[in-house]
Order: sequence, then C-alpha cells, then structure tokens
Amino acid sequence: MALTGVLRPGHAQVRVTDIASASHFYRDVLGLVETGTDGSGRVYFKAWDERDHSSVVLRQADTAGIDHFAFKVRDRATLDRLESDLRGWGALCERVPAGEMLATGERIRFEIPSGHLIELYAEKEAAPYPGQLRNPRPWTAAAEHGIAPLRMDHALLYGPRVNENLALFTEILGFYLTEYVTLPDGETKGALWLSCSIKAHDIAFVEHPEPGRLHHVSFLLESWEKILRAGDIMSMNKVPVEIGPTRHGITRGMTIYGFDPSGNRFETFCGGLQSYPDQAPIAWSWEELPSGLDYPQRKLHETFLSVVT
Amino acid sequence: MALTGVLRPGHAQVRVTDIASASHFYRDVLGLVETGTDGSGRVYFKAWDERDHSSVVLRQADTAGIDHFAFKVRDRATLDRLESDLRGWGALCERVPAGEMLATGERIRFEIPSGHLIELYAEKEAAPYPGQLRNPRPWTAAAEHGIAPLRMDHALLYGPRVNENLALFTEILGFYLTEYVTLPDGETKGALWLSCSIKAHDIAFVEHPEPGRLHHVSFLLESWEKILRAGDIMSMNKVPVEIGPTRHGITRGMTIYGFDPSGNRFETFCGGLQSYPDQAPIAWSWEELPSGLDYPQRKLHETFLSVVT
Amino acid sequence: MALTGVLRPGHAQVRVTDIASASHFYRDVLGLVETGTDGSGRVYFKAWDERDHSSVVLRQADTAGIDHFAFKVRDRATLDRLESDLRGWGALCERVPAGEMLATGERIRFEIPSGHLIELYAEKEAAPYPGQLRNPRPWTAAAEHGIAPLRMDHALLYGPRVNENLALFTEILGFYLTEYVTLPDGETKGALWLSCSIKAHDIAFVEHPEPGRLHHVSFLLESWEKILRAGDIMSMNKVPVEIGPTRHGITRGMTIYGFDPSGNRFETFCGGLQSYPDQAPIAWSWEELPSGLDYPQRKLHETFLSVVT
Amino acid sequence: MALTGVLRPGHAQVRVTDIASASHFYRDVLGLVETGTDGSGRVYFKAWDERDHSSVVLRQADTAGIDHFAFKVRDRATLDRLESDLRGWGALCERVPAGEMLATGERIRFEIPSGHLIELYAEKEAAPYPGQLRNPRPWTAAAEHGIAPLRMDHALLYGPRVNENLALFTEILGFYLTEYVTLPDGETKGALWLSCSIKAHDIAFVEHPEPGRLHHVSFLLESWEKILRAGDIMSMNKVPVEIGPTRHGITRGMTIYGFDPSGNRFETFCGGLQSYPDQAPIAWSWEELPSGLDYPQRKLHETFLSVVT
Repeated sequence: MALTGVLRPGHAQVRVTDIASASHFYRDVLGLVETGTDGSGRVYFKAWDERDHSSVVLRQADTAGIDHFAFKVRDRATLDRLESDLRGWGALCERVPAGEMLATGERIRFEIPSGHLIELYAEKEAAPYPGQLRNPRPWTAAAEHGIAPLRMDHALLYGPRVNENLALFTEILGFYLTEYVTLPDGETKGALWLSCSIKAHDIAFVEHPEPGRLHHVSFLLESWEKILRAGDIMSMNKVPVEIGPTRHGITRGMTIYGFDPSGNRFETFCGGLQSYPDQAPIAWSWEELPSGLDYPQRKLHETFLSVVT
Repeated sequence: MALTGVLRPGHAQVRVTDIASASHFYRDVLGLVETGTDGSGRVYFKAWDERDHSSVVLRQADTAGIDHFAFKVRDRATLDRLESDLRGWGALCERVPAGEMLATGERIRFEIPSGHLIELYAEKEAAPYPGQLRNPRPWTAAAEHGIAPLRMDHALLYGPRVNENLALFTEILGFYLTEYVTLPDGETKGALWLSCSIKAHDIAFVEHPEPGRLHHVSFLLESWEKILRAGDIMSMNKVPVEIGPTRHGITRGMTIYGFDPSGNRFETFCGGLQSYPDQAPIAWSWEELPSGLDYPQRKLHETFLSVVT
Repeated sequence: MALTGVLRPGHAQVRVTDIASASHFYRDVLGLVETGTDGSGRVYFKAWDERDHSSVVLRQADTAGIDHFAFKVRDRATLDRLESDLRGWGALCERVPAGEMLATGERIRFEIPSGHLIELYAEKEAAPYPGQLRNPRPWTAAAEHGIAPLRMDHALLYGPRVNENLALFTEILGFYLTEYVTLPDGETKGALWLSCSIKAHDIAFVEHPEPGRLHHVSFLLESWEKILRAGDIMSMNKVPVEIGPTRHGITRGMTIYGFDPSGNRFETFCGGLQSYPDQAPIAWSWEELPSGLDYPQRKLHETFLSVVT
Repeated sequence: MALTGVLRPGHAQVRVTDIASASHFYRDVLGLVETGTDGSGRVYFKAWDERDHSSVVLRQADTAGIDHFAFKVRDRATLDRLESDLRGWGALCERVPAGEMLATGERIRFEIPSGHLIELYAEKEAAPYPGQLRNPRPWTAAAEHGIAPLRMDHALLYGPRVNENLALFTEILGFYLTEYVTLPDGETKGALWLSCSIKAHDIAFVEHPEPGRLHHVSFLLESWEKILRAGDIMSMNKVPVEIGPTRHGITRGMTIYGFDPSGNRFETFCGGLQSYPDQAPIAWSWEELPSGLDYPQRKLHETFLSVVT
C-alpha cells in the first residue's frame, strides 16, 4: 500500500464547560452533524463530508481543553504493530476497549512527551451517508448549515519537549516534518508541522511550558470564499474571532480563527501546500514568524502564542 | 512510513509533432518552467511549484500521444521491491539507466495490460527552487506566467483490459480505487480512478479498443477563479477548448479541457475529494455518466469518449 | 440628481404554462422570495436583496414568453415627463392604473419597435425587509435558499427593428449604448446592450424576425463561485442548462443559462464592466461573436441565436 | 439622460514626500499604469481598465495628504450649470484652466465645509487603450502587474462639518446618501457614504476636528481572491497593512487597507451593495460600528479613526 500505517486524524475529544451551549455551537454555528450521545453524556459530531461516525466528541468538564486526539490506522494488524513499536520506544500504552466511544473499535492510548494523550484505532462505523456512494451530488443541504466544514483536518497542540514528539511521530508513527520554525537561537525547532499523508499538516506542535494544551482543532473548507462566509457566520453568532480572514505563510493556507463558547480555539481553513516525504521541510526563522502566521499583515498576534486551553 | 511505496506521478513523456510550437505552448501558454533539453532533443518542463527537475518531457515524433507515464517511489529499496513484485505478477520489466533522462535516476519500465508504458523511479534531482525552502513567499512571478499550474497531477489513459490494470495497480503498486463507472451491463467497470495518496486520482483508465492511448495529462490549479483565468488564456491563445469551465460529478473537481498544438488533450483543474483507502469507492452508473462528466450540464460530450492520441 | 430618469429594471411579467411548477421553480430552485398572489392568479417574487415588493411576476398562459418588462423611474414627475416625451416620439402610451399589479403604482405602457411591451412606473411598495436598514447583516438565510440571486438585473429581448429601439432608448429614455455586435456587413448593429446606470446592461436587444420574443431574464449573483453553485443546483433539479459556466466576452461577465419549466430561458451571472455614458461603446464584429458569447470556448452556441419564447 | 450631472470620481491629486519611491509604489506595487509627468513634476497614473488619461496624480510635497479630489461631469454645459449652482449655494469657485493638468480640460475648484478641495471637470483625454474598443480581451498583461485595480473608485475624507458636506453633495451635486453612522447621541450623523451612481459610495466623509484630511483613496478589484492577492503583494513589498483582508459591514464590500510610502492610506476592495436614490439609506449605530468596519472580527481598529494625512 502506498498509503498505510496511520491514515488520518480520526477524532478529537474536546472538553467543554457547558455541553448545551457547546452542542449548539458545534452543530448550528460550526455546522457539524450531530451523530449521537453516549451514556456518559458525551455528544458526537461529524463533518457533513466525512464518512465515519464522528470526528469531534464533546465532554462536559470543569475546564476546557482536549482529552485526546486520535488517528485512524489502516487496519487491526497495523494497530497491533504500532502498539508494539510504541512500547519498544518506551511509550506506556493503554488499550481502551471497543465501544467505549460510540461506533469505535478498540483504541491504543499513550501519552506523548508534550503531555498530550494520543490514540490510535482501526475501526469506526460509517455514519449514514445517503446517496453519496452511488452517483453522488457534489454537496447536500448539510453543506450550507452553519460554517459546514468538509472534515476535521488537524490539531495544533502546545506543550513541552516537542522535539521528542518529533522523534516519536517520525520514527515510530510514520509521519514526516513538512515545516518548522526555529527559535531565536536559529537552531532549535520550536514549532513543528507533521504529515502522515500529502496534507501540509495532520498534526502540529508548538513548544510551551504547560503540558497537554490545546491550541486549536482545525476544520477544512473548500475555498477562500467559504472562509469569508465562515467569518460572516462567526460574526452573526457573536463568535470571538482572533485572526483572519488571512493567509498563513506557513503551509500557505487561508484561515480564520475563533473560540468556541468554552474558550477552545478552532480554525476553519482552506488550501495549503501538498507535501511529500521525499521533500525537505520548509524552515521559518523566528524573525519571519509574523509573516508565517499572518502573511498579508506580517503580524505576530500575541494571543496566538499565549492563549491555550 | 504512512506514505510509502509509490509516492506520486513524477513525469509524463509526451509526443508532439512540432517541438517548437509545443515548447512555446507548454512554456508560455500552459505556463510551465522549461528546465532543459537533452541530447536527443527532448525538452523538459516543471510546474512552478514543483520541486523536482521536471514533470513533463516533450519528444518530437510523427504522431502525438504518450511515451510513458512515470511515478516517483519512496526510495531505491522500494524500487527494487516493486520490480520484484512486478516480475512476480508477470510484468516484463526493463531497467532504464540513470541519466537517460535529465536529472533522473534509474527507472523500471513495464507495460500494463492497457498497452501503456509505466515507469517507476526513486531519484530525480531538485530544480533550483530559490527562496522556497526558507521563509518562502506563497507564490512567485512564475505563478502568473501563462496558466501556471501548481503541478502535473495525474493522467487519464485509454486502452483495453483496464480491469487488469486495476488488479495490477491495487495488488502490486499499492493504489486503491476511488471512483468507477459501470458499463450499461451495470457491473463491468469501464472507467477507473485510482489513488496512491489522498488525492481523488493519481491515475485513471477508461476501457477503449486501441491500446496505449492518451486521453489527457492533468495539471492542478489553486481555485475555480484560476480555472476561469485558464479559460481566458486558452481563448487569448486560440487553444481549442473541449469542455468547461465546469465541475465533474466524478471526483467533484472543477475543470477545463483543451488540446495542445499537436492534439494532445490536457486538463487544468482544481478541487476534488480527499480519498482514503479505508473508504469504499464511489460508483457511477452508465446512465449518470453525463452528470459525472459535466455536472451542471449533465452532458456526455461525445469527443470526450472518442478523441485520444 | 446624477442618477435620474429611468432608474433600473423593476419587474418582468413572464408567461408560464403551469403556474404550480413555475412557482416551485422560481421560489425553490432559482430561490426568489414569493411575495404575493393577486386576484388574477399572478404570483409575485422578489430577490432576497431587493427592497421593492416584486421583480418577477408569473402569469399562467398557453404559451411561454414575456408580457412586459418594466422600469422604475425616479418619481411621478419623471413618469409624466417620459410619457410626454414618448408620445412626442410617436409611441402609443397606455396608462395602467395603480393597483393593477400588487403594490405597484400607475404604469405607462408602450410598445417598442421590436414588438415588446415596456412599462414605466414610479412607485412600488417596499417588501418587508427586516433588519436590513439598521446595522444589517451582509446576508440572511434567504441568500442560500436555492440559487438566490441578489436581484433581477436585466433582460435580453429578440425582435425586429432593434435599431429603432436603440433610438428610442437613447433619445427618449436616457439610456446609452455600451456594447454592440455588427452583422456580417460590418456596419449594421444586430445586437445591442444598453444601460441607464453604470451597469454593463439594463436591457439588451437582438435583431430577430419574430416580434416580442423573450431571450432571457437575468439575475445577478455575487461571484464566480456562486455561478458554479447555481450550476450545481440546476443539475440537482434537472434544470436544462444551455451554456456555461463560462465568461461572456461581451460585458466580460460570468454566466450560466438554463430554462424554466415552461421553456423560458434565464441567466444567472456576475461581474461585468462598469460603463459610463461618456465612453464609446465597445464593438464586436460578427466574426468574433463566438468569443463574445463564450469567451473560453470561442463557440457560437446555435440555440442561443434561435431558441426564444 | 438617466445618468447625468456628476458621473464619477475622476482623479485624486495626492501629496507624497518622495516622488521616486511613491512612483515605484503606485506603478509596480499598486500596479497602476504611469501615463505622464508634467512640467511641475507631477506624475500621472491610471488603472489598467480605465479609459481616461489619469486617475491618480502624485505631487511631491513636504507633507502627505490630498490636494484635491475631482469628479468628471457629463459635459461642459453640466459644468457651467453646476458652477452656477455652487455659487448660488455660497461656494467660492475657482476656474482652473485647461491644460493645468495633463490631458484635462477646464476645472471648477471649490472648498467644501470639511476643508477639502473638490474639483469638477468635463473633459479628459482618453489614454491609449489598444484593442479594448473592438473585440476586446477581458483583461491584459497589465491586469497582473502589481495589485492592478480596475479603477480608482472613491475616497474617504476626514474633516469637520460633514453634515454641511452632506447638504452640498445631495442638494447641489446630485449625490444621495447610501449609508451613515450615528454618533453616540443616536442622532448626529458622524460618517457618511454618498453615491452619484449605483455604487455604494463615490465619496465618503467622517467627522474629524482637523480640516482637509485624507483617510484613503480606494481602488476597485474584481474579487475576494484578488483581495488576498493584493494582501500577498503588499506583504512581499513590505507595505504596512492596517486592516484586512476582511469584509466591511458598511457597504458589504471586501477590503484590505495599507499605507503608501509617504503614509497615505489606500484601500483595495471589491463587492459592495448596489444602491439607488429611491432607497432609504442604511443606518449604523455607534455601538455597531465595529461590525460596520470589520464584520468578521466586530472590531473597531483604533488607527482607522485616528490616522489620517
């Protein structure tokens, strides 16, 4: 298989401080499709164009943040192999039984050096996807309900020891580095974009003193015009917008960032480079980070470096 | 590695009946970057955003068409393994020595059941890519010279026995089927879209009585607005446009097709589904092929099925 | 007043052969807002962003076509002055009393040389426009119901003696010529685009042997991306699409044409030149009419010249 | 004539502190076409799609700002009539002889209550416009040189007594009010958008204690995608960007603002409402000014209210 091992980001389990307002936001403002609620009260969502049961899972908690970020792997044999490789690398792996999350098979959970919980799984049931596998329409009414991203695309996580994350993700999990920012010393990598596909990023990390922090979960839109539409909808719903619409220099994607009602940052974006593992990563110097973050304005928005959940 | 084996389409060697007018077309109308001419008179081009030396190679000949379509693989070990697997499958493989094409390492050449020559290689020198690996600009002046696609993206090839191609590409080369069209019998696959990545297609085949035919080589643009710009430039240069601007139902991409001065069809397109190998392929019935080809018009353009080189 | 006299196209009264299917089409596919039905069974519509009560009025009849095309003028004094000028020019003017159409004041009706009925009126009640005059949102849910044009923009009418129309519209009604096509003789104007504003066209005429024919009523969209969305919606609803998505060379606008269930052609378009009356009109030769009609394809779609209602 | 009196913004004469760097900026970054230099050293520019000789005139001076903003009127009779009306209103009018500016006829100059010099003229020679009046291409190479706006579109001027400007522009010059912002008292208009056409604004004023200030001259682009391209080009050329890309709630247009090398603010924008004089103006309350300025972010950028030249 040309595409094997870890396939893609599968789901993010996000903590929210009020499940009712959060569900309203993710369903009617962000425009995901609600697909279920489990016995523990977690609410499940998928993007309209995703096939699997869910990609965002909300859990009521006292504080916002991310419980874990999970990747779907090729099959059960891959899951077993990766668990073995992770244990060989020294990771503590825990098996979470099938069914602990709705429609989801057994998961391997482990903590990475930055203090985040990452999960792998091989099986998630398909959501009902009427009419989309035979002579499909290019889009449906759900594609215009709220912001309505195509899919949950990646996450940016803040925490310490991200260069150890880099080693783990590249040596064990089969990712490769697509772009990075060096700190003012000109050498140390302080921000990392990693891909397990040809996307510019399937996950990204920024060095930060507090472990296990969520910077944002990101959702893919179809076009720059949809970014503006997302911004309009955020404004209509009084969503606090942090940055954008603008273009990132890093990855070249177009973007707008806001905060959910619990204060978790989210991104809706489009575009971005296609990357391949045979290509050298793109390096950004600390001095050019402003253009890497907000290309037109060449501006380092302070909150982008400091506000996390 | 999550992305391994065959990485991507690498280059297409295309026959043209007048190398001078063809070079003008590919350089100044399509807007590729000319990167060299070899001793046999072949002229090499890359898209402005590609890193490797070349993705289109023109060869003067008496008739138009495609000499071979080549894929870059992960590394030399992959090349050796795939050659072994191909021989095991019964393919006749030929080694083409490094240097036979400019900047290109050793290639494995084999004929597939539809009568096309496919090549694999692991090494191609990088083209000079000034400023693009450190604090890059999102685009350069070359991005506005002619149509200026981002990259050569895929090819659609016409020939017999495409279901044998399907077996070869999925069982040996690690591709997976993303979409297909069934013939009027409702069962036989007559058109196949195959991916070795998360692109909707890295190569596609249509059943056709004549072996080894080129339907089109396709080039990626950034947006639907760039598709219109491509159409404007085609018109300004009296390029015969066959179809578009429009949307394909199949792959959901936006597209416009024209012919180079030798009569080889080319496509410039954007968008399209992201695919994954764990997802069932999308099926199109023969009756819905018109909407699969030209979604707004639901029209089966006759030349699209009959004109090849 | 810098903008005076005739302000803009106000409404088109269109004949449909089945009022039920037509109402469904104009409301749910084209995406106009239904604003009323009068005692004679006519159904009224406005575009979501229009302020006046109605811009499309459907009348059940045995044959499709256009009853009349009406312009709103600056005020009642203008209406009286223009009636006097029209009578001076030799037009037979008829007063249609206020209230004959819903929410519409007295109208002046007259036949123009091409055999079409044109109307002028000064007063039409505003449609309820909640929230749009104080701190408005840039768009509402209605902007995504069906194709949802911003406004009814212009009409193209086919008939004889269009050069007499030209004289009437420029000398009496204050329009000016923005673009025209000359017939193969290189001199006679056979197609005319006329503006009473800075739009590329508020009305257009093409020479045709049959009097009083409707070629199309046109509706304004916001962007090229909305043109594609319109095409998608037409396809989803099995609307016959004639041309597009494409760009007109004439006016430079982007466009897609289809037919309503009764066979009346309609256009949804965006863009186009801004014109001013101090600027010479743009001339198109008969030989270049293909690029004037379909710029990318340089194609003279035969039905565009022959199919009218 | 439906469109008569004042036709459109004609030219802005802008003061720059270094004519060489300013000329480079307006020609190669903003992407205007340089059309001449006069005996006093003023440098003239037009946008690629404009027909008249010039729309921006740069004058070297010790301080940045605007010398005057000029409108083209329908003809000489209109010029004479408006001068008479202006004198009747109490304006001091000065005749500036033909030829004082390149290619420009006699001008009427008068000061408005906000302390700005406004000019009217009826005649300006056409710039060479090769190929654009007969079978034109929709765009030329000049449309991709720098930001390359279609035209100079309007100006926003800051000064005192803007409600007296309102009376002058509506009662004497034939403009009408399209949108306005009320001050915190809920009644006094503090910002005014005025149109002499169907554009959302041909000129705008904001109440400000210092007379005769320039807020920005604005240039029209074709699309939201071109706004992003403008932002990219500004960044590539280290142009200070103040706001954007974003959407204005007021006028609904999409925009990005930057500063020329002398510190004069400029805008490139697209879209916006079509307005008509029979429609009530749109009112914005002081509290909603943030969404009027930056709709997605609902943010009142402080510099937008304070920085002028």
